[in-house]
Amino acid sequence: MRYELYYWPSIQGRGEFIRLALEEAGADYVDVARQGKRGMAAMMEFIEGRRIKHPPYAPPFLKAGKLVIAQAAEILFYLGPRLGLAPRDEAGRLWAHQLQLTIADLVVRIHDTHHPVSGWLYFEEQRPAAKQRTRDFWRYQVPKMLGYFERVLARNGGTYSVGRRLSYVDLSLFQIVEGLRYAFPKRMKRFERKIPKLVALHSRVARRPRVKAYLTSARRIPFSQWGIYRYFKELDG
Amino acid sequence: MRYELYYWPSIQGRGEFIRLALEEAGADYVDVARQGKRGMAAMMEFIEGRRIKHPPYAPPFLKAGKLVIAQAAEILFYLGPRLGLAPRDEAGRLWAHQLQLTIADLVVRIHDTHHPVSGWLYFEEQRPAAKQRTRDFWRYQVPKMLGYFERVLARNGGTYSVGRRLSYVDLSLFQIVEGLRYAFPKRMKRFERKIPKLVALHSRVARRPRVKAYLTSARRIPFSQWGIYRYFKELDG
Repeated sequence: MRYELYYWPSIQGRGEFIRLALEEAGADYVDVARQGKRGMAAMMEFIEGRRIKHPPYAPPFLKAGKLVIAQAAEILFYLGPRLGLAPRDEAGRLWAHQLQLTIADLVVRIHDTHHPVSGWLYFEEQRPAAKQRTRDFWRYQVPKMLGYFERVLARNGGTYSVGRRLSYVDLSLFQIVEGLRYAFPKRMKRFERKIPKLVALHSRVARRPRVKAYLTSARRIPFSQWGIYRYFKELDG
Repeated sequence: MRYELYYWPSIQGRGEFIRLALEEAGADYVDVARQGKRGMAAMMEFIEGRRIKHPPYAPPFLKAGKLVIAQAAEILFYLGPRLGLAPRDEAGRLWAHQLQLTIADLVVRIHDTHHPVSGWLYFEEQRPAAKQRTRDFWRYQVPKMLGYFERVLARNGGTYSVGRRLSYVDLSLFQIVEGLRYAFPKRMKRFERKIPKLVALHSRVARRPRVKAYLTSARRIPFSQWGIYRYFKELDG
């Protein structure tokens, strides 16, 4: 089956968690909105469209045969066992999904460091709030959330977060570390000594042949000043 | 099976979406942390605990036999078909879950109106940011998100959001309307004419015998100045 992924064509964003899974699995997929104007029009038609039964609220969404599903964590829940990137039994699938939903919560918190007041205002228009939110984020949320994933890894033997092989959760944790390094290079450098297992997981994922090939390909959209992870010198205290 | 729900005993919060489903279904369950000090200790043991295989990051979580799962949306995904509150086929379950995940996104946005900068500071310490965030919330996010659910209802015939009978999504949408009325009585009153189907759904859910009995029982924790929905006169412009 050829999967169709629909996501904004110029950012990694929430779509990246799905791209990483499709790439690692060597899945047959097309990143529709990146196929020129027509692809973008096709995506918008789904969102506005009256023609489908279950319209998504927002990208990312995935078309798999007749099924159209949205929400990054749900898409990974669906794809996981099909791509060999999640356990097949119910308890294992639910555990991977639960971790992915906690990653999704973290992603909201990461985004809101630079836009705590409004997504419709520039960073410069919400600078004091952003600084305060970022301070809190690094003081409370990062230690608590990354500390949790570090313990999950440790408890599972240290190599994988779920089960006895690589899962989409591991790929997403790679993207969390990678993005925090981009957005907060100084803060992350200081913090990494507290999460050695996550850092080692990041390195192992980066070295996997398909992930490595993807990261250096034109299919990997570079980090930028759009999307979840953004670099502002004054937030990287 | 007797389900064990674990959630903070003094707020509705995210646990309420699950309580509503268990109540509507007449399920056999115990709200563990509300059973005195021992219940609270049992909850904390799960969170800190080294004894379980899949430790939750935070409440709410559910114990169903040997299974322990967290994240409100995942718990409802699991309970839905078992309580007769979701379709049983994969496409229907995924659609209900997708809607619930979008409700979860809305819940974060509702909470952040009064605490946009930090959950560790009082409202009074982040008042300007809260006012700006609330303005944005009502100008952009509420029309977009509640407008989406209004269309979902309309497209499905107007009575239920998913399938041909009541689902946990309908119960959660009831709680969204109920909470917005508590936190923003004036703003919500003005806005409701734009979402007649959601308002009618709220009324129908409130009249269901088990929901009605629950809402007037001691098991329903009152709204307060804690949790997701909080009333601040200055935010209800």
